[in-house]
Amino acid sequence: MNRRDLLNAPVKPMELKSKMTVNQLIQQFDNAGSFGAGRLATACDVFENMVRDEKCTIFLALAGAVVPAGLRYIIADLIRKRLIDALVSTGANMIHDLIEAFGGHHYKGQWFIDDFFLYKYHINRIYDIFVPEEDFVKADKILIEMFDEIAKEKQGEVLSTNELMRLIGSRLENPKSIVRAAYETSVPIFLPAMRDSEFAYIHIVHKERSKNDKTLSVDSFKEASEMVALARKSERLGMVVIGGGVPRNAVQHATLMADKGLDYAVIITTDRPEYGGLSGSTPEETISWGKLKKKAGKVMVIGDAMIIFPLTVAAVLERLGKDFQRKGNP
Amino acid sequence: MNRRDLLNAPVKPMELKSKMTVNQLIQQFDNAGSFGAGRLATACDVFENMVRDEKCTIFLALAGAVVPAGLRYIIADLIRKRLIDALVSTGANMIHDLIEAFGGHHYKGQWFIDDFFLYKYHINRIYDIFVPEEDFVKADKILIEMFDEIAKEKQGEVLSTNELMRLIGSRLENPKSIVRAAYETSVPIFLPAMRDSEFAYIHIVHKERSKNDKTLSVDSFKEASEMVALARKSERLGMVVIGGGVPRNAVQHATLMADKGLDYAVIITTDRPEYGGLSGSTPEETISWGKLKKKAGKVMVIGDAMIIFPLTVAAVLERLGKDFQRKGNP
Amino acid sequence: MNRRDLLNAPVKPMELKSKMTVNQLIQQFDNAGSFGAGRLATACDVFENMVRDEKCTIFLALAGAVVPAGLRYIIADLIRKRLIDALVSTGANMIHDLIEAFGGHHYKGQWFIDDFFLYKYHINRIYDIFVPEEDFVKADKILIEMFDEIAKEKQGEVLSTNELMRLIGSRLENPKSIVRAAYETSVPIFLPAMRDSEFAYIHIVHKERSKNDKTLSVDSFKEASEMVALARKSERLGMVVIGGGVPRNAVQHATLMADKGLDYAVIITTDRPEYGGLSGSTPEETISWGKLKKKAGKVMVIGDAMIIFPLTVAAVLERLGKDFQRKGNP
Amino acid sequence: MNRRDLLNAPVKPMELKSKMTVNQLIQQFDNAGSFGAGRLATACDVFENMVRDEKCTIFLALAGAVVPAGLRYIIADLIRKRLIDALVSTGANMIHDLIEAFGGHHYKGQWFIDDFFLYKYHINRIYDIFVPEEDFVKADKILIEMFDEIAKEKQGEVLSTNELMRLIGSRLENPKSIVRAAYETSVPIFLPAMRDSEFAYIHIVHKERSKNDKTLSVDSFKEASEMVALARKSERLGMVVIGGGVPRNAVQHATLMADKGLDYAVIITTDRPEYGGLSGSTPEETISWGKLKKKAGKVMVIGDAMIIFPLTVAAVLERLGKDFQRKGNP
Repeated sequence: MNRRDLLNAPVKPMELKSKMTVNQLIQQFDNAGSFGAGRLATACDVFENMVRDEKCTIFLALAGAVVPAGLRYIIADLIRKRLIDALVSTGANMIHDLIEAFGGHHYKGQWFIDDFFLYKYHINRIYDIFVPEEDFVKADKILIEMFDEIAKEKQGEVLSTNELMRLIGSRLENPKSIVRAAYETSVPIFLPAMRDSEFAYIHIVHKERSKNDKTLSVDSFKEASEMVALARKSERLGMVVIGGGVPRNAVQHATLMADKGLDYAVIITTDRPEYGGLSGSTPEETISWGKLKKKAGKVMVIGDAMIIFPLTVAAVLERLGKDFQRKGNP
Repeated sequence: MNRRDLLNAPVKPMELKSKMTVNQLIQQFDNAGSFGAGRLATACDVFENMVRDEKCTIFLALAGAVVPAGLRYIIADLIRKRLIDALVSTGANMIHDLIEAFGGHHYKGQWFIDDFFLYKYHINRIYDIFVPEEDFVKADKILIEMFDEIAKEKQGEVLSTNELMRLIGSRLENPKSIVRAAYETSVPIFLPAMRDSEFAYIHIVHKERSKNDKTLSVDSFKEASEMVALARKSERLGMVVIGGGVPRNAVQHATLMADKGLDYAVIITTDRPEYGGLSGSTPEETISWGKLKKKAGKVMVIGDAMIIFPLTVAAVLERLGKDFQRKGNP
Repeated sequence: MNRRDLLNAPVKPMELKSKMTVNQLIQQFDNAGSFGAGRLATACDVFENMVRDEKCTIFLALAGAVVPAGLRYIIADLIRKRLIDALVSTGANMIHDLIEAFGGHHYKGQWFIDDFFLYKYHINRIYDIFVPEEDFVKADKILIEMFDEIAKEKQGEVLSTNELMRLIGSRLENPKSIVRAAYETSVPIFLPAMRDSEFAYIHIVHKERSKNDKTLSVDSFKEASEMVALARKSERLGMVVIGGGVPRNAVQHATLMADKGLDYAVIITTDRPEYGGLSGSTPEETISWGKLKKKAGKVMVIGDAMIIFPLTVAAVLERLGKDFQRKGNP
Repeated sequence: MNRRDLLNAPVKPMELKSKMTVNQLIQQFDNAGSFGAGRLATACDVFENMVRDEKCTIFLALAGAVVPAGLRYIIADLIRKRLIDALVSTGANMIHDLIEAFGGHHYKGQWFIDDFFLYKYHINRIYDIFVPEEDFVKADKILIEMFDEIAKEKQGEVLSTNELMRLIGSRLENPKSIVRAAYETSVPIFLPAMRDSEFAYIHIVHKERSKNDKTLSVDSFKEASEMVALARKSERLGMVVIGGGVPRNAVQHATLMADKGLDYAVIITTDRPEYGGLSGSTPEETISWGKLKKKAGKVMVIGDAMIIFPLTVAAVLERLGKDFQRKGNP
């Protein structure tokens, strides 16, 4: 590498104008190409490439309270357009999707409030979102009944989390629900830590009122095999991460167990590498494990997913055009 | 509250001297009482109070790669002294404990290195730690055999993660192992996302070579019931969190499902509240859900757990005295 | 406050479509209203209100390497449109504006590179930006001559940083330069830590070759008086902060010394309150000092200014319309 | 580099015991050698080497509200022991030293409080510290008088910030004051952004009541020359950074202007590289500029300085022994 090669791409200062589209703004970010703006522009490119690759199976790994905070329709829409082929989520995000599917709501609140006061009012707080207890209770009630019904149907058959989510999805009506959209499009939903959510409470109540042989049984490892099988039959693999944690790790590990490795990775996180946790680990680190290919399109954008993810999706939707519909994989 | 009440505790500047003990330093932090120093001093007090409360069941929630990074003996020691009564961990931390229990190692490495070079050398990187592939392979081999053996013994009985960890613990010899220490002291180990780790690979290989009726079966929800039962029969509940994520949420949710709420909480994290994720949520937010009591001793220390946790434990061990042995709960 | 009041504004999930304008996206952020998306939507509102307030003097406080990274034209444009009335900056950001004004460039580079290799090549790195030594040298040369010339003109008169910046601005030709735009529009540029930048080197060389009585003299405190005077004669005061540090503090302190307090504040930072530094302090904390009015429109957006600031400006430009030109204050 | 070389230093898990000294704990951090623990252990080594190097001039760069928070005596003590040879600080930290030197106090407060309530009570908040207005007023009053007196003495002579701080130091009695300790030991105090602090208010009042020819005049650039001269006559250069910002940059730039470059650097910060600001830039980046030597002992510890700095100092004091007194440089 000689000196000239290092100095061949000048930073072009951004120029703004009134009524720019989102993608026009992203193109200015690309012109500047520095710090977060550069990374975000790259994220749009990598996501676009992933989506335009007809042989790529795309996983969305979802952690953090982004569904209650307002990403629900975006994710359902990505599923319906098949811009993602599989969803790997925390249990909680699906619970919050279901709360809204059953008519409940999340409310704009404030973080600077006396939490004991909220507690007495039966209002649960997620930073600046309020979730009234009754909306949880309503969802619990419906889901316990679904669990009873599914258990009866399945007669002791051991399910994977994905199979259970499909059975729930088939019972929903709300077309804007993520779980419903996934059911209708046959996009799998894997919940590698399903039990770490309101689903655990639902299962406990269901179990306590079931005869033992009629208890719904979810196997811890079954979905791992399903994810590996999915990865094995995919030609190429892509991953979009919101937040990290168990969902990100589960996707990465599946690609390794399938003896493949990701071809594309967009990671949106607020975590950092230096504490050593998986959520903050760089795409580069992932290469050492064989979970990401050396030549993969890859980028990690550090920032609030509630801002970064919609920006990325809006820019890519603009590039794809209004009527873009992906076929889906594998 | 009048003005005088707001101004009654002057910050006393810290004074250092040669050969201070850790707890003497923490007392200087308490004198200053500000920013991180104040929070860390409070964390020592809350942990001390938790431990001195003979009726308190203490959960350690463990996320992040802290076992490979060197907290293994500290945690095993806390278990043996019964300064914790239950461990709720990511699967990966237990895998890394087992890697060392079987004679493998983690190595001091560097983060600033070509990861494809490491990949070709079969070295996996965790920030500045290197884990050679062969140590994973060795652990895999032994654990696959254990899975075969346990499956044969259990004849289709569906296990919880805790039951499986006990069965593994009973087969270990290394006394410094966390899993072994937990077995010997009957401290449960709950792995709410067990499948999101090398255990998934181990299970897949085991399953592929087992007759179907001899496959080890781990139920997703069984450990949740066990945790709730444990919380129900405890008089008081305490939690120490390293990192957050699924382990923290699982503990908090268990206390809620048990209709209790924590009496003590020390949370060590590098995450922040404003992105809305659970790992960064404040102890105060936890009150709104009923997972933490209003009057609980509570503190969140923002910092690297590899520094903050040993500091806290060393100071509290000093306060407790050399021969302190707790009875354990519940 | 009764329960109903807490639950009156449901989070409306965002909806994206192809070819959205930036402000349409921000309106979706406002619909969701949570976490970073909510704060960013508020920032657009506060900045819009500030700009539409004809009696408000708006300070832009500028820290971090955002000029080399590509915000140069945006800031010059804000000055020309008089969406800001005064600039308070680090010295370095003005140096980098001048480097480009004199024909130099910043280059897109990479952060993952051997820095000693760059050093040997005379390339200075700012994260993923490369700045070739020769562009510094060229700017130094021109500025040293300007210093000589100005010193000669001023005959020992002691200048403020603002006076010096005006004298430099008057000598520039590049209309896209921030310093030139400020000169042409009579927008003052205050550099409260001017000496902490290449200006110090320039001054040293200038001084070493000047006769002592012909050395350019810049007074540390003179600009403070000018800022206080400006604040005193303003009816209302607004502040937009990129990054924090000395520029933010200087603005806040000026409003206090003027016995006023800000009416509007938008703070974009990646710092946090809990370490106690000024850059991460909340707008609320600022109220206790009397630097921000209780009823001020205020928000702190945590994120990369290279993303957040252009988003905010683009949305507000869209709201204001293509031909909006502000009169400017005071 | 062959594979064996990458795997030659196993992580040794930490072992804690009751009544460890601080340095014994740091040695356990060194055994583990990973993540923050490894970096902190390295920081102790680099600071020890710097101090034991008899030809090294050591700068302490000080930003953030660490003096009000309780580091005042530690810094004064480092000065008296000559473990630092020059202090480069924000103006505010010196103001808070002087507030206590004049009998004022900072108080332990809470961050979760109504700031308008504090405002009405004339209490200024710095995160969880309260500073009563009257202690500011008292310091202002004394310092205004000192300014009057110094101006009269100096008869229009233009001072550097360091010269002014010495003149203030000579007028103090409190031996625990940083400014006094620096005066007594001839350790210079450079304040590259002096005017960005209460000193500006003090100067304004002083100026308004002075005849113009009797106004104290502080030159912006004079201290830069002094710092360069100091660096030039030093054989080796070391830097300890708390926080970053202008103080860090000023030290680094001085070593560059002196055509040297640092031989040692310990940086304690909570900022990160990826946003491109100076405070978060890595020591490696500093090498590209020639501000840090390639072979320098260097480390960046990410964490709260209120915890990390006292830990580092206490460990090094233990290594140096009780009666260690450094000669000081240059």
